[in-house]
Amino acid sequence: MFDLSELREPIVQAPMAGGPSTVALALAVCRAGGLGFLAAGYQQPEALREQIVGLRDATDAPFGVNLFLPTTPTRANAGLDAYLDELVDEAARQQVPLGAPRYSDDAWETKLDVVVHERPAVASFTFGCPPAAAIERLQRADVAVWVTVTNPDEAERAQAAGADALVVQGVEAGGHRGGFTDGEDDDGSGLLALLRVIAHATAIPLVASGGIADGAAVAAVLCAGASAAQLGTALMLCPEAGTSPAQRSLLAQRAPTRLTRAFSGRQARGIVNRFLLEHSATAPAAYPEIHHATSPVRAAARHRGDTDAFNLWAGQAHELAQERPAGEIVHAFGEEARDVLQHWAGRL
Amino acid sequence: MFDLSELREPIVQAPMAGGPSTVALALAVCRAGGLGFLAAGYQQPEALREQIVGLRDATDAPFGVNLFLPTTPTRANAGLDAYLDELVDEAARQQVPLGAPRYSDDAWETKLDVVVHERPAVASFTFGCPPAAAIERLQRADVAVWVTVTNPDEAERAQAAGADALVVQGVEAGGHRGGFTDGEDDDGSGLLALLRVIAHATAIPLVASGGIADGAAVAAVLCAGASAAQLGTALMLCPEAGTSPAQRSLLAQRAPTRLTRAFSGRQARGIVNRFLLEHSATAPAAYPEIHHATSPVRAAARHRGDTDAFNLWAGQAHELAQERPAGEIVHAFGEEARDVLQHWAGRL
Repeated sequence: MFDLSELREPIVQAPMAGGPSTVALALAVCRAGGLGFLAAGYQQPEALREQIVGLRDATDAPFGVNLFLPTTPTRANAGLDAYLDELVDEAARQQVPLGAPRYSDDAWETKLDVVVHERPAVASFTFGCPPAAAIERLQRADVAVWVTVTNPDEAERAQAAGADALVVQGVEAGGHRGGFTDGEDDDGSGLLALLRVIAHATAIPLVASGGIADGAAVAAVLCAGASAAQLGTALMLCPEAGTSPAQRSLLAQRAPTRLTRAFSGRQARGIVNRFLLEHSATAPAAYPEIHHATSPVRAAARHRGDTDAFNLWAGQAHELAQERPAGEIVHAFGEEARDVLQHWAGRL
Repeated sequence: MFDLSELREPIVQAPMAGGPSTVALALAVCRAGGLGFLAAGYQQPEALREQIVGLRDATDAPFGVNLFLPTTPTRANAGLDAYLDELVDEAARQQVPLGAPRYSDDAWETKLDVVVHERPAVASFTFGCPPAAAIERLQRADVAVWVTVTNPDEAERAQAAGADALVVQGVEAGGHRGGFTDGEDDDGSGLLALLRVIAHATAIPLVASGGIADGAAVAAVLCAGASAAQLGTALMLCPEAGTSPAQRSLLAQRAPTRLTRAFSGRQARGIVNRFLLEHSATAPAAYPEIHHATSPVRAAARHRGDTDAFNLWAGQAHELAQERPAGEIVHAFGEEARDVLQHWAGRL
C-alpha cells in the first residue's frame, strides 16, 4: 500500500475537477517527485479510465484519483425554484439556455469500479466518507483510501471507517468545501488550527490542503502535523494545467475570495465577482442541481472571457500563484521548505 | 527599541480585554521568556497605569500594552433600534436593565498618554492603524508600535504608516477581529495563507495570531514567516488568567465556534451558544454601542454561569487549551517547537 513517506517531495497535487486537472499536470508533479492526481469529478467513467491508463503508461510513479461521493438529491422547494428563476437573467446574458437542475450521482458506482480495476496508488474522496465495503474493495486492490475532512468529527469518523490517510481541508482552500455535509456547525476552520486539532484526535497520516502557495507554507504544514502539502491554486497557472485563459488572467493578483453556493449549490471558494455578489445571499444548498443548472451559463461566460459571470475558484493565497512549469514548482517548494526548516532548527 | 529576537521564547501573550488578561498572566509569560501583554481595552486609564506600574515593579522583562483605536460612532438606524428591542428579552431573562447603547472612544487619548508616559516595550493596536503622530510619539518614547492586521492591504498600510511589527490575525482567532474595518471584502483569511501573503507583501516582523494552541503550531507559524506566535485562548485556562469559571468549563471541549456581531456589534469569534444562534442574523455592525447595551446582560449571565447567554470568546483550536500555569505552557510550547523543527529539518 502506498505510503506518503515514499514521495521524494512532500507534495500532493490537488485534484481540480472541472478543467484545471489534466494528465499532463499530474505527470509533471509525479516526475518531480510529488504525487500527481486525476480528478474523476464531472468526467465520464470511460474518459477517467483513459486518463488513468495514459498516466500509468507515462510514468511508473504512484499517483492518485479523486472521486466525489454521491450527495442526497434536493427535494423540490420554493428556495430552489426562486433561485432558478433568478438565474434566467444570467442565462439570457450569456445567450444560452439554463441547464436542467438535474440530480446526478456523478456515476459513482461505475467510477469506483474503474478505480478498483485500474488500481492507482491512492483514491481520495470528496463530499463524504465511502462506505466500509468500498473502502475494503479498494484496499484489497492495494489502493490507499484518503478521505477529505473539514472538522475533527469527520476526521474521527473517517479514521474509524478505515481510511489510510486524511486530506485535511482548511477554509482557505479554493473550490468546493470537501467535507461530509454542506454547511457545518462552525464557519469553517483555518488549516493550521484544524491540523492541530485533528493531529491530536487521530493517528493516521494527514495531507494538508488550503491556501498553501509556497515552500514556507509547505514547511509550516509539516510542522503542524501533515505528512505532505496538497497544492491546488498554486498549480493553476502552470502551463500543464487546464485552467481557462479568463481565469488565469485574475489568479496572480490580489482580490478577495469568498465561500458561496451561487454557482453550484454547495459551498465553494472563488474570487469575488459580480455573479458571486449578486447571488450568494439567495443561492440554496442544492448540489448538484444548481451545478447542472448553471453549467451552460458558466461555460459560455468562461468561453467569452466574462470573468464576472462564472466561478473563479481560488484559494486565499491565490495572489502568490506562479506561471511556471509544475515540476519546477514542486522542486522549488521542496527546496524552500528544507531551507526554512534548517533556518529555524538552527536558530531556535 | 524592543526587538522580537530578544525573547527567549518566540511567544507573545495575546491581550485579552474584558477579563482574561491580568497582571499575573503577563508576569508569568514574561518570567518564562515570552512577551506578556496588558489589555487596555474597557479599562479606566488610571487602572491601566496601575497595571503597567505593577508589572514593571515585578519584572525587568519587556512587556506590551494593547489599545483599541476609536471606532466611528454608529448613526441611529432602524437596524440598531430593532436589535435593541430584540435584546430586551435577554435583559429580562437576566433580570437586569439593558445598558445604554452609548458611544465611547475607550478613553483613547488618555490611555495613549499613559502608554507614552509609562513606556512599555511595545504598544499594540487593535481596530485600526494609529495616526502618524501617535506612532511617532510612541517611537520617540522608545515604545515599539505593533498594528493588528487581517489582510494584506491593512498590512501594507500599517507598514507605510511606520509600524515596527504587524500582528497578523487569522480568522481562527477568538474574540474580536482586530482589523481596520468591521466586515471585509473577503470572508476572513486563515492564518497560514495570510502570513504568506503578508510576508511576501511587507518587510517588517510579523507576530502570528489565531488558533495557535501548541508547540507544533508555534513551529508552523515561524516557518510561515512569523517571528513569534501570539497565544490567547491557549492561555485562558491558566490559573493566572481572569477567565470566568463559567467559560473555563467549556473551553477544553470540542464545540463549534462562529464569528458573530451579536454580543458587541462587531465581528468576534466565540463558542456557539443560544445567544449567538438567536441573534447573529439580526445584529448590526454597531460597535461599541451594542457592546455597552449588552454589557450588564452579559455580566449577569457570566455571574450566574448561564453559558448560553454571554460571549464565550474562543479561537478555533480551543479544545486544545490546557489548565496549566502560563510559564509551563510557554516553556513547553518552546520545547515542542524546537523538537518539531529538529525532526523535520533532519528528515526532509
